[in-house]
Amino acid sequence: MRGAVLYAPHDVRIEDRPDPTIVEPTDAIIRLSATCVCGSDLWPYRGIEGVEVPAPMGHEYVGIVEEVGPSVTTIKPGHFVIGSFFASDNTCEICRAGYQSSCIHRELMGRIGTQAELARVPLADGTLVATPDVPPDDLIPSFLAASDVLGTGWFGAVAAEAGPGKNVVVVGDGAVGLLAVLAAKQLGAERIIAMSRHETRQRLAREFGATDIIEERGDEGAARIKDLTKGLGAHSVIEAVGTRESMLQAIGATRPGGHVGYVGVTHGDLPGDQLFFSHTHLHGGPAPVRRFLPELIELIWNRTIDPGKVLDLTLPLDQVAEGYRAMDERRAIKPLLCP
Amino acid sequence: MRGAVLYAPHDVRIEDRPDPTIVEPTDAIIRLSATCVCGSDLWPYRGIEGVEVPAPMGHEYVGIVEEVGPSVTTIKPGHFVIGSFFASDNTCEICRAGYQSSCIHRELMGRIGTQAELARVPLADGTLVATPDVPPDDLIPSFLAASDVLGTGWFGAVAAEAGPGKNVVVVGDGAVGLLAVLAAKQLGAERIIAMSRHETRQRLAREFGATDIIEERGDEGAARIKDLTKGLGAHSVIEAVGTRESMLQAIGATRPGGHVGYVGVTHGDLPGDQLFFSHTHLHGGPAPVRRFLPELIELIWNRTIDPGKVLDLTLPLDQVAEGYRAMDERRAIKPLLCP
Repeated sequence: MRGAVLYAPHDVRIEDRPDPTIVEPTDAIIRLSATCVCGSDLWPYRGIEGVEVPAPMGHEYVGIVEEVGPSVTTIKPGHFVIGSFFASDNTCEICRAGYQSSCIHRELMGRIGTQAELARVPLADGTLVATPDVPPDDLIPSFLAASDVLGTGWFGAVAAEAGPGKNVVVVGDGAVGLLAVLAAKQLGAERIIAMSRHETRQRLAREFGATDIIEERGDEGAARIKDLTKGLGAHSVIEAVGTRESMLQAIGATRPGGHVGYVGVTHGDLPGDQLFFSHTHLHGGPAPVRRFLPELIELIWNRTIDPGKVLDLTLPLDQVAEGYRAMDERRAIKPLLCP
Repeated sequence: MRGAVLYAPHDVRIEDRPDPTIVEPTDAIIRLSATCVCGSDLWPYRGIEGVEVPAPMGHEYVGIVEEVGPSVTTIKPGHFVIGSFFASDNTCEICRAGYQSSCIHRELMGRIGTQAELARVPLADGTLVATPDVPPDDLIPSFLAASDVLGTGWFGAVAAEAGPGKNVVVVGDGAVGLLAVLAAKQLGAERIIAMSRHETRQRLAREFGATDIIEERGDEGAARIKDLTKGLGAHSVIEAVGTRESMLQAIGATRPGGHVGYVGVTHGDLPGDQLFFSHTHLHGGPAPVRRFLPELIELIWNRTIDPGKVLDLTLPLDQVAEGYRAMDERRAIKPLLCP
């Protein structure tokens, strides 16, 4: 099969790789209907995060089940399925508490590399969720978004306790930030303030439910948020970038007793005293997307939400290198790749 | 009046200071029945935290109201009252959300200095809570504990979501840590693991409700906690020290999805990636003691709890220097000072 492999920073290639096979009796093999490039793929792509190369790339996937191992009972060949970036058994105590991305048997799909024609999915019954039927093509981008960025933005909004009567700030206008806006809207937030200085993304943020856009950053951005929240700061802030600066911006934008949901992979140190005196609640980490998949699938299937709009560039898998470049240069929010 | 003043690291003295007077119409003047030395007083005492000297010291207090300003309506002369280390209006939106220590009008009692015979308490109606009657002398240490360390330990336990069915770890065996054990017990926690290598404190921890004591620290301590929690980590961990090491110990002891309540004044940086991948909830800061005072006063008045036991050394106010020394050298958990 064809699959993407990173050889060095800024050097990602499509090449022939061996077809995956059932390794464990709980595995499934899926044929990808679509895959994509994630913001977190850019850390190794840019050389900021070291990885052992050559490295297969990608962890987002939707597709049709081709084959299942002998212990797989609920997932069947022919199902159209969605899974998350961590395979999980969905039965351990941590999974049952809703933290499937910290499952005691979790496996990172990024190691397998889903920017490919085929992928092996471990713990298939726990990891994969099937749609009611094979979906029409126009829904595929939205189901693909559910595999990571929608689920991650949703977790950010849940962790920030976005909901009725709350004002919500979203730091970051990538796919996750934009879909956190959508999530906050679905969760009933009263006011949703998106921080973005990029016109296309501002437009999408408004479409997804943002009531206000702030272009300022840092201290100026914080001051604008105070202006919009009676001088107190927001009830709920979603951090979807992952730098020290964006974390401090998020914490600074939150009122005492408010909630920060942080889903950008955090890089750098955070000042303990600033956290302490902020009086905020902090929750986040790798999103347990599996927790939300049944609900998200229903919302997409019923066409209540259209998260696929963040996939604003479609390329054949063979042009994966251009997909990375477009995202790296912020020419695209998120590229969809067709195997 | 006589009051404690810090002149330099390790140099705290009692001296004559002017009697406080009503400055704002919302003030009250109280005559202290008892005061004490706090773990957080040791930061400037040890010279770790710079303060402008000479500095009046102390922020814990119980006493009898002598005089109130013309705008004070609920607090009356003759009331026995307890307040917290932040004066608060108890009416602003932040107070009503339960974060009185971030009140938009808050004033730090430490600036006033309550290791003294008399103290001015700003925002008296919002800050002070009166007991049903003037209490018998034997209850005074417990009410004094409610002014800070009990309220702080309680907030730690609430922030860590200690409760029925939960296993709880307490990092730190100072007065706050020990009273966090008591709080976790009152909140219904199933198992309470205290980390202490000090025999007297271990005994008090058991008396307050600890079911297990762990003497190991760092990685060994974390391993022991994993052993006691099916390899998963605790549901709730209360951090009551405030160093980078103790914070990392607390985060490392918590299961994914679990809650860390941190009430030790955090010093130093925290590694963002470790927080992120821990999947924990983090909440803490300066305890909004005022939120809990009515409930704590009732529990003490009814003799349901006896938090005053952490005040294991009683000295006349004139011997404040010995009080600081005893606490600094860990000869006393917490010294009570009689003005």
